Amino acid sequence: MSSEAFLTDFHEVARIGATPAGGVERQAATPEDREVRDWFAAFAARRGWPVRVDSIGNMFALVEWRPGADFVLVGSHMDSQPLGGRFDGAYGVIAALHAADRIATRVAQGAPPPEHNLAVVNWFNEEGSRFAPSIMGSSVFAGLMDEQEMLQVTDRDGVTVAEALDAIGYRGTDERPTPVAYAEIHIEQGPVLEREGIPLGAVDCSWYTQKLDVEVLGEQSHTGATAMADRRDALVAASEVVLLVHDVTEEFEPESMVSSVGYLTLEPNSPIVVPRRVHLVADLRANRPEIVQQARDLLLERIAEVARKRDLTIDVRDFDVRPVQRFPEEGLELSEKVAAELGAGIRRINTMAGHDSVAMNRIVPSVMLFVPSVDGVSHCEREFTTDEQMVVGVDALTEATWKLLHGELDGVREEQR
Amino acid sequence: MSSEAFLTDFHEVARIGATPAGGVERQAATPEDREVRDWFAAFAARRGWPVRVDSIGNMFALVEWRPGADFVLVGSHMDSQPLGGRFDGAYGVIAALHAADRIATRVAQGAPPPEHNLAVVNWFNEEGSRFAPSIMGSSVFAGLMDEQEMLQVTDRDGVTVAEALDAIGYRGTDERPTPVAYAEIHIEQGPVLEREGIPLGAVDCSWYTQKLDVEVLGEQSHTGATAMADRRDALVAASEVVLLVHDVTEEFEPESMVSSVGYLTLEPNSPIVVPRRVHLVADLRANRPEIVQQARDLLLERIAEVARKRDLTIDVRDFDVRPVQRFPEEGLELSEKVAAELGAGIRRINTMAGHDSVAMNRIVPSVMLFVPSVDGVSHCEREFTTDEQMVVGVDALTEATWKLLHGELDGVREEQR
Repeated sequence: MSSEAFLTDFHEVARIGATPAGGVERQAATPEDREVRDWFAAFAARRGWPVRVDSIGNMFALVEWRPGADFVLVGSHMDSQPLGGRFDGAYGVIAALHAADRIATRVAQGAPPPEHNLAVVNWFNEEGSRFAPSIMGSSVFAGLMDEQEMLQVTDRDGVTVAEALDAIGYRGTDERPTPVAYAEIHIEQGPVLEREGIPLGAVDCSWYTQKLDVEVLGEQSHTGATAMADRRDALVAASEVVLLVHDVTEEFEPESMVSSVGYLTLEPNSPIVVPRRVHLVADLRANRPEIVQQARDLLLERIAEVARKRDLTIDVRDFDVRPVQRFPEEGLELSEKVAAELGAGIRRINTMAGHDSVAMNRIVPSVMLFVPSVDGVSHCEREFTTDEQMVVGVDALTEATWKLLHGELDGVREEQR
Repeated sequence: MSSEAFLTDFHEVARIGATPAGGVERQAATPEDREVRDWFAAFAARRGWPVRVDSIGNMFALVEWRPGADFVLVGSHMDSQPLGGRFDGAYGVIAALHAADRIATRVAQGAPPPEHNLAVVNWFNEEGSRFAPSIMGSSVFAGLMDEQEMLQVTDRDGVTVAEALDAIGYRGTDERPTPVAYAEIHIEQGPVLEREGIPLGAVDCSWYTQKLDVEVLGEQSHTGATAMADRRDALVAASEVVLLVHDVTEEFEPESMVSSVGYLTLEPNSPIVVPRRVHLVADLRANRPEIVQQARDLLLERIAEVARKRDLTIDVRDFDVRPVQRFPEEGLELSEKVAAELGAGIRRINTMAGHDSVAMNRIVPSVMLFVPSVDGVSHCEREFTTDEQMVVGVDALTEATWKLLHGELDGVREEQR
């Protein structure tokens, strides 16, 4: 199957949930997510591949050569952030479908049959914007999150994951394929590959990440009639917290950590009422756990000072702690071999963002490839990767999958991951 | 009618929309607002007073002695803030109903009949928490806001004022009573009367107030994968704006101005996305216009610096400017005479908060009375005024209304207000 066929499909999918400024909005289990899932199912149906949907909404398109054998899983996610980009996630799923198609053709034309079967996967809710936490479908699959608990997670309107999946007809009952290895390709979402002019990245480890759940409890009062000295304004204290979270990165080497507050709500949120409560989530990431832990300790100290100074309560809770994950050395070497065979440059690279591959790597040897992101931007409408860059990635993913199907990472043990 | 009857009614109404911590939640045109309106209508119906509802949802209970004569309006509002107090507004309406009842009895028992008729009013949406701006019903009545425009104002779910009033059955078509004077009693919402041990306040003027509508436009990006130096984080800039708005009061005499941000929303508000847009409303108030204007100018300068420093756009728009309103000297003297007759202390006092009386004072001579607020707090569940303090206020409102009905402020000219 040709690069043109891949590009045609990629640009067709980018029209589902398209936004005026060139992005897409396909949050998990929305009508747009259903539409892109229907597209995935139709791609498989045209090739006679059975599609399974599991009880957390993950979709698997199966290409089987050996009945009863285990599966190499290859894929990513097709959901997006609100006003997100058209590459994040969708690129990896469409690349995986085309890799599978090429491999099926190759085998049908007489190439040595794989030792494992192949399943292309579209993971549920990688983005976590409508339903937190992110990386939900693959984490449930890998046994890292509890399925019943995740099905009861609600969005801002009180709709549960279970209800939302029912509403789009994608809460399945099918058995999950048993995995033996995993591969994924994704845009870098950072500037390194573009800056160095290298077409491929072999991800060696993920950053250490954690979130802080912060609740500021002040006192509601009248914005007009309450003297400044008598106020316990939750938003004023929360604004100091936002700036502390931002500024804490300056205590460390440049580019060694990132931190941000992406979520914040206040109550009652009325123009003439001093806010009584602010709830916010801070996100801390670094390539070394010590950096995140130091930053977290500094923040706790400084936040306690704000609470004292402003005479209000600030509760801070650690959650969603994700340790550094190392991808197996054998998988990195496999990726480097593929690149050499294709005559393409490759370098080892960290991922600062979380990915489904990070969850899958906890249970099976996993390979994660990156292609460049123009300007390093993502989670926004101007996210961009060229057609040429995408095509190199599809070729690399095809050959990496071929090697996995032929058992090249079989027997890589847990302690090496 | 006795003080006990008033207190029974007051505490009964406090049960409508009651919150666990002793407050009420009856935002405009919600089911709780309907319930309290039904209570108002039933009070009037039991006494044979006709009730009129106008096209912006204001309710008037009419007590008529002279068919065709103009009306003295007396009242306040029964809607509340989210998790608001049970005194703000409701006290004034229930006090007005009982004042009317006492006056009706007095006339029926042979006291000199009034020159004007009496209408007790429950104004629509004084609070402005669900539908901004606040003081909506009385401002439409006074011709200060456009009715058609206000009917199209939407809440956060996109429901219009017109739809919400239809939904509770209180979008009326009745003719408005023609006003000749207005009286209102309200809790102070500040600490002055309690501190000085004075039971009554005669409001001499309202503070100068204005709002700033602030929109911060940054760029959406990935919280994990975007280097700190590449970000244009709308929430970081907005947090600086919140602190600037808070701190600007320190440039002026203590207690001469107040400022706050009570409303703030961000987009996309996802824990792993750097915010692209923040919308917030700042509220500035002072007893002298120059102070608000100087504070506003300082803020515009400092906000522009934030935008430059953070490389993003911040648009600031002035709105809801409300000049200092002086209540007529004759009305203040009338209140002082009433207090003397009752043997109760009284002092002149400013109002920092807006009130329906401020709107009404633009079209007819108006009298505004305060009773003490324990600890000076309001717009919160622990807002409190004692039964004894409330009863003094009902007596004062009754006598002030009696004098207005007998023409004591007739002929007070616009330029004196």
